[in-house]
Amino acid sequence: MKKIMSSLALLLSMTGAVFAQLPSPTNLGRNPYPQVGPDMRVTFRVNAPQATSLSVSLGKDYPMVKDENGFWTVTSDPQVEGFHYYSLKTGGLTFNDPSVHSYFGTGRDCSAIEVPGAPDEDFYTPHQGVPQGAVRSIRYYSKVCGQYRRMYVYTPAGYEQNPSKRYPVLYLQHGGGEDETGWIYQGFADVILDNLVAEGKAVPMIIVMVSGVAQKADGSGDGFEAMVTEDVIPLIDQRFRTLADRDHRAVAGLSWGAKQAYDLGLGYRNLFSWIGGFSGIIVIGEFRVRPAGYEDPEQFAAAYNGIFKDATWFNANYHLLFIANGEAEGAHLKGMSDLLTERGFNNVFYQSPRTAHEWLTWRRCLKEFAQRLFK
Amino acid sequence: MKKIMSSLALLLSMTGAVFAQLPSPTNLGRNPYPQVGPDMRVTFRVNAPQATSLSVSLGKDYPMVKDENGFWTVTSDPQVEGFHYYSLKTGGLTFNDPSVHSYFGTGRDCSAIEVPGAPDEDFYTPHQGVPQGAVRSIRYYSKVCGQYRRMYVYTPAGYEQNPSKRYPVLYLQHGGGEDETGWIYQGFADVILDNLVAEGKAVPMIIVMVSGVAQKADGSGDGFEAMVTEDVIPLIDQRFRTLADRDHRAVAGLSWGAKQAYDLGLGYRNLFSWIGGFSGIIVIGEFRVRPAGYEDPEQFAAAYNGIFKDATWFNANYHLLFIANGEAEGAHLKGMSDLLTERGFNNVFYQSPRTAHEWLTWRRCLKEFAQRLFK
Repeated sequence: MKKIMSSLALLLSMTGAVFAQLPSPTNLGRNPYPQVGPDMRVTFRVNAPQATSLSVSLGKDYPMVKDENGFWTVTSDPQVEGFHYYSLKTGGLTFNDPSVHSYFGTGRDCSAIEVPGAPDEDFYTPHQGVPQGAVRSIRYYSKVCGQYRRMYVYTPAGYEQNPSKRYPVLYLQHGGGEDETGWIYQGFADVILDNLVAEGKAVPMIIVMVSGVAQKADGSGDGFEAMVTEDVIPLIDQRFRTLADRDHRAVAGLSWGAKQAYDLGLGYRNLFSWIGGFSGIIVIGEFRVRPAGYEDPEQFAAAYNGIFKDATWFNANYHLLFIANGEAEGAHLKGMSDLLTERGFNNVFYQSPRTAHEWLTWRRCLKEFAQRLFK
Repeated sequence: MKKIMSSLALLLSMTGAVFAQLPSPTNLGRNPYPQVGPDMRVTFRVNAPQATSLSVSLGKDYPMVKDENGFWTVTSDPQVEGFHYYSLKTGGLTFNDPSVHSYFGTGRDCSAIEVPGAPDEDFYTPHQGVPQGAVRSIRYYSKVCGQYRRMYVYTPAGYEQNPSKRYPVLYLQHGGGEDETGWIYQGFADVILDNLVAEGKAVPMIIVMVSGVAQKADGSGDGFEAMVTEDVIPLIDQRFRTLADRDHRAVAGLSWGAKQAYDLGLGYRNLFSWIGGFSGIIVIGEFRVRPAGYEDPEQFAAAYNGIFKDATWFNANYHLLFIANGEAEGAHLKGMSDLLTERGFNNVFYQSPRTAHEWLTWRRCLKEFAQRLFK
């Protein structure tokens, strides 16, 4: 019931405080704008006395209006709660709103708003008294890419207090146009795991986040899989107290990162036995909304060196195949899950109520996925 | 000799490679622009077919010129090597260059270039084989500010392999308009310490970086000192294996952060005994280029509850007072140092060759300061 109650109805049922326009949590310092109203509309304001035109690009373009003091403002249509990238536009230029923090997305550091009102936002909110893990930013040299790169590594609360304990590892990928920072700054992965572990709902685990954009040093194309398997996993197993086997190694990702997670999880069966795909597809043949490849027994059986030849083998060897997306994204991933189920391949499907192809969907996916890991 | 050799002369003396235009290390992915030439001029390029005017703001405004394909370009005057913030401007709007990463500075996420060519750039460059420390991003609750905030904590290589060893701590502050990310992303503090420790030139230490912008929860003004002394230091001494006494606790900062470092180091004598001020002043009375306050024996003796009343006591109780700036910043800090010396107060002065009020100066200041700490 709670889940299907609309955010607006929920907000209306809450305290008077929410009737105020609230600054977006992404605002810099104490900037009052952008503001989100109880009707989920976002009001933007930019000071640009000399500008001749200005608009906000949030799903669609909203032309702004200038007042006599040089402040440009516009209020958007109602937004779905969650995290949304946006930009300002003028004269053919797209740029950031100086009022808010930027987040690496859309291929650059990009402005974003957080529309509050999710009935379940507690799960990605820090709470006093909850033991905190740590997120490490590590510069590492990738032989495959021939360059220094940065990864983020989350270690759970207690990691440093228990110097003899070893932990399972989740490799977690961002989406297209994003990088290794996404799951921390947009996704709150560390907060989500801290909260789940404190409630006893998830096993303490290490989470590794690397950028999925990885060109081979020799220019011969995409080096992502080689970088993860040859550079990253060995470094993690050497530097951290991991349980270094496939039974204790998971891979998941969102959107483009889901495709990468399936490629790693299904393509390197000796390395992974837990797989999560959030808002992304398993590519079998030529994928369609109800994938042609899935319909074709030959393509199906040939995919990933025959991983889908034998359901009995698959079910005995993979602990979890988790498929998820947001309700507003449509039914094609449910179709993919149903088809796998029809053919006997165990999988778990999760759908985030109301949300679209954005970070609230993926925070919920991680919450549901993490509770099923390493058990 | 090497230090006073100009970068241009140095570059001309180097391999042919440097005669090419090189992409700025701050460029996103493989973006070719901005490019830095061997003459230290920076060429900017932006694709904006519909824009009617565009300029680059780098110290001064450089109007860009549009070609028939809609690419706007301009080449700057020669720049001093190092890290420089810049912006694009059009019709009264200031915004970021989508070709480069942004860095939190100037009060927002801001574009920046790194002009190579420093004769000593090795010291802030990662080197294979150098054992790496770790940088933790920690969300913490500040009772003083009544909010969750983020701090960065650097632990040296070996911290996790030596679970019984305790370490001294340096509290390190950014400058005005920056935040806790500055010393890692602009300053490479982790790389500098990794390199110094590997060479045996610095003692392994923990470095704590917090945002210096800290309003009290009750709106009663600046809560920075209370936050550091009541929230941050206790958390660090509880969560990390620190040597928790003034003999093993240092504070330093740059520009505005230098003023904060002096306020903490001189104002909380029970907490700190090592102080570093990079490109910033000790405020005694009304500071002038040769500070009036310093000339006035009464103001001098009254400052910081009389910390400068007794040179013998000061020299016996403070291990290090380190004052530094960049050569291009002028002589006033050397004057401050000389005056303290004349009055018998031990201090160390360092000047970064050629550089201005920017991050190469502060990387060098940290390198010189860190080598003198905890010895």
